[in-house]
Amino acid sequence: MARYVLSLQCPDQPGVVHAASKAILALRGNVTDSQQFSDPQTGTFCLRTAFDIDGHDEAEIRAVLNTELAAFGATLRLRLENDRHRVLILVSNVDHCLVDLLYRRSIGELSIDVPLVIGNHPEPAAMCASYGVDFLYLPTTTDNKAEVEATIAAKARELSIDLIVLARYMQILSSDFCNNFESMIINIHHSFLPGFKGARPYHQAYQRGVKLIGATAHYVTSDLDEGPIIEQDVARVSHRHEPADLVAMGRDLERTVLARAVRLHVEDRVVLLGHRTAVFYR
Amino acid sequence: MARYVLSLQCPDQPGVVHAASKAILALRGNVTDSQQFSDPQTGTFCLRTAFDIDGHDEAEIRAVLNTELAAFGATLRLRLENDRHRVLILVSNVDHCLVDLLYRRSIGELSIDVPLVIGNHPEPAAMCASYGVDFLYLPTTTDNKAEVEATIAAKARELSIDLIVLARYMQILSSDFCNNFESMIINIHHSFLPGFKGARPYHQAYQRGVKLIGATAHYVTSDLDEGPIIEQDVARVSHRHEPADLVAMGRDLERTVLARAVRLHVEDRVVLLGHRTAVFYR
Amino acid sequence: MARYVLSLQCPDQPGVVHAASKAILALRGNVTDSQQFSDPQTGTFCLRTAFDIDGHDEAEIRAVLNTELAAFGATLRLRLENDRHRVLILVSNVDHCLVDLLYRRSIGELSIDVPLVIGNHPEPAAMCASYGVDFLYLPTTTDNKAEVEATIAAKARELSIDLIVLARYMQILSSDFCNNFESMIINIHHSFLPGFKGARPYHQAYQRGVKLIGATAHYVTSDLDEGPIIEQDVARVSHRHEPADLVAMGRDLERTVLARAVRLHVEDRVVLLGHRTAVFYR
Amino acid sequence: MARYVLSLQCPDQPGVVHAASKAILALRGNVTDSQQFSDPQTGTFCLRTAFDIDGHDEAEIRAVLNTELAAFGATLRLRLENDRHRVLILVSNVDHCLVDLLYRRSIGELSIDVPLVIGNHPEPAAMCASYGVDFLYLPTTTDNKAEVEATIAAKARELSIDLIVLARYMQILSSDFCNNFESMIINIHHSFLPGFKGARPYHQAYQRGVKLIGATAHYVTSDLDEGPIIEQDVARVSHRHEPADLVAMGRDLERTVLARAVRLHVEDRVVLLGHRTAVFYR
Repeated sequence: MARYVLSLQCPDQPGVVHAASKAILALRGNVTDSQQFSDPQTGTFCLRTAFDIDGHDEAEIRAVLNTELAAFGATLRLRLENDRHRVLILVSNVDHCLVDLLYRRSIGELSIDVPLVIGNHPEPAAMCASYGVDFLYLPTTTDNKAEVEATIAAKARELSIDLIVLARYMQILSSDFCNNFESMIINIHHSFLPGFKGARPYHQAYQRGVKLIGATAHYVTSDLDEGPIIEQDVARVSHRHEPADLVAMGRDLERTVLARAVRLHVEDRVVLLGHRTAVFYR
Repeated sequence: MARYVLSLQCPDQPGVVHAASKAILALRGNVTDSQQFSDPQTGTFCLRTAFDIDGHDEAEIRAVLNTELAAFGATLRLRLENDRHRVLILVSNVDHCLVDLLYRRSIGELSIDVPLVIGNHPEPAAMCASYGVDFLYLPTTTDNKAEVEATIAAKARELSIDLIVLARYMQILSSDFCNNFESMIINIHHSFLPGFKGARPYHQAYQRGVKLIGATAHYVTSDLDEGPIIEQDVARVSHRHEPADLVAMGRDLERTVLARAVRLHVEDRVVLLGHRTAVFYR
Repeated sequence: MARYVLSLQCPDQPGVVHAASKAILALRGNVTDSQQFSDPQTGTFCLRTAFDIDGHDEAEIRAVLNTELAAFGATLRLRLENDRHRVLILVSNVDHCLVDLLYRRSIGELSIDVPLVIGNHPEPAAMCASYGVDFLYLPTTTDNKAEVEATIAAKARELSIDLIVLARYMQILSSDFCNNFESMIINIHHSFLPGFKGARPYHQAYQRGVKLIGATAHYVTSDLDEGPIIEQDVARVSHRHEPADLVAMGRDLERTVLARAVRLHVEDRVVLLGHRTAVFYR
Repeated sequence: MARYVLSLQCPDQPGVVHAASKAILALRGNVTDSQQFSDPQTGTFCLRTAFDIDGHDEAEIRAVLNTELAAFGATLRLRLENDRHRVLILVSNVDHCLVDLLYRRSIGELSIDVPLVIGNHPEPAAMCASYGVDFLYLPTTTDNKAEVEATIAAKARELSIDLIVLARYMQILSSDFCNNFESMIINIHHSFLPGFKGARPYHQAYQRGVKLIGATAHYVTSDLDEGPIIEQDVARVSHRHEPADLVAMGRDLERTVLARAVRLHVEDRVVLLGHRTAVFYR
């Protein structure tokens, strides 16, 4: 018995669920979970269905689904539920998100493989070593940015990376890089976007005197801090919190929000709808 | 064009979604929203589907659904989405939940009819009048409890009531009354259940020194404060808050939690699974 | 026995608390609550002290405080705790914040007097009448804005108004008006500022695809949506919520956040520190 | 220049703040932060004052404070702000709270020394080693409980431990042990107390069908799960979350709540008031 996750998107129209459920039934599959959404803004129908199947391999399942759903112009993705995403983590010397992801992976909370961590500072090497994860130190200067990105891209392809996580990487990636890995890069921004874009958001928050600070995990596009939002959260602050306190409190938000976003992504629960996302929560 | 909401529950088994979607497709219906859940604890499959249909009346739709779903042992409920629940509100002299429900109904946020409010204190009469809602004052003593309940039950039947809301009614209903209106009574308890059952929960919370207080909306069963929970929320408190402050802060929680629960119920989003509920949130 | 609230601000320096406590002790007062804050950004020391005193009138107390605190360059404000602020509420046809404030006042939760509500739509008249509050309908056009503001200002002075609350007034006040009532106007903005300034913030939020929406209560300055923030809160939303749903969910945030801000203000718990506020919470 | 934190408790009475501020002023100290609370339930006055002082050592300061405050029957505690608490952490094989505390300490967020971690399972040894912290494995059976506790107590005294943290230790300590280290042991309970005391609280929460789960950090007393609460928090769950999911979500709550409680404690922000606590938040 194997469990698959089917993700499907097509123009909204009658009959899609019927066709998908017919295909699964024909294969004697048993649907264990299903969520759907018809987006009024883009006219897109999205479906995420998990099902158990016995005695058919992935190719057969794919063939039956393709046949039944041929008429609907659907984009299908089929994945064995326990196939693990291969994740490349980029980090700076600010390592709380990295450490958190590695810990969650180590206890099995996050079902991912992390074949490599790349840092533009050497400090995270020891932590990676203690978790048995390879670490590559790529010093980044204003001059070698293109070269660094080329190395990252080469490593990503060489290691069959499915997802790049910017775990407080704090470098702006080029448009080319962003476009080459479209919908494959998740960043954690240390503010409640769209408030406080750009640098030093906690200092901006302090100056503005907000009563809540936030963090935002989003897909990276070439438009800085404007990518589709996956997850956000906030924490209450007071006038007694100076920027350094906000930075400290923000760490808790950042690591939690990023971990949730990564988990939602690798469980195929995030659907891109133009500039927005639908998220099929548990 | 009319929009219907189909709610379905049956033992978990393959083919239910396929059968339901086949029926709707046969009627040329268009599914606008659908959520489902397979409960591992009770082995129950639950489905809530909203669909638009043209040229078929309710009896025809029901017939087609019954035919297609006959084999699954399903409990079906079909409702026109804009059919309004008829709600009887019971209240004491503590009227913040009542006022809130009446206001939400007056601006169209809550699609319900309130043919009657019954109070065991006379004070809410004026507020009901200002909202154009009938109010019946039923003084309650230790002696006339059975009589009062009989009057409430009679009114409920006479007015074709679908839902009874205890908006801080603060009387314990008899087992008979609870059983006669099973799954039809929603209460707001002023604590985060299961903490602080019974009387004066805010005073209990103060004594225990909790850092958050809560409110819980639940279906009423004959087992006091043990009914299936629909919605809960909490608010942060400090040592500076005395019981009277907790009571005041609690009002905000209570009215919001109760209003959410009533809305979830009248939109057919709450499914009873034994002692628990599944809630199909928007 | 009378309870007073002393609010004090001065340049941060040693001895202020000692001097204030000496004055209160000399009058045989008993401090029941005291909070203080030294703002590192502006170098301002702020103190809020509540104390009970017997046998001295307000003038005597003020004289003793002034004497003891003369050397510190302090701004003092002394107020009998049960002196009620006189509040003018401005409203449009969107009345949920107005209704909420009037209800809280009616049950004694909010210790304010509301001698007048002014609306640029006639609809809130009935609700005001049911709460026994005067309502003035001032139709506002693009042409008569100056005239309307002049009437509001005249009414504010005539009625000895201490605080003007914009309870979803949805008109931009002139710089002159804002300056004339500096630190005396509280607005509720229906977004989590600084995100989504300006018009239709819930539609902006929907377009951006945020996962939380918010509301912000702030003092009004001539710089639109940039005034010092008093209180904020957020609520989680999903892709299923369309702009109209966000508007509905936002109402709960707006009324709660505005009521909290008004209460904090009238209890002298908000201190202006340039563009930011310190808030002495209970 | 050195910064001290003075914590003071005494029966509520006039003059305490004046006396304390007089003492600090006499030493030419500068108060940087001060919070106070008069507890109506126990009649206790509590004060926490941070101040900078130059040219006087701790003994002198203590002498002046004792003299000025002699008449008030006050319990005084004076501590150099950068004196670090010596913390003994007890752990089982569930190590997320331990890892979190060690990480926060490593980046300087938590100013504590951890001379030893004691575990009743061997697994945390490697993690402790990677953080350079000593680990002692003390296998615990039903028979050797007294012996284990004696060893822990001996280590605590030998290492001049100020605080014992039960970071998911999951052993019930004897009354004697609890009494010997009164107000010196912080536990994290994996529920929102007083709900779901005892074993397997997440399973209890699932059975009850609550819509929020919680975690509670509290001082340990001989009365299990009844100690004074320091900090609590909750997270929203749905019917889709099975007990294992609640356990996973609870980890985030537990580590955050415990870390906040430890930080509040070591910064002298928690005051015990009988069965309750006052917490002087930043």
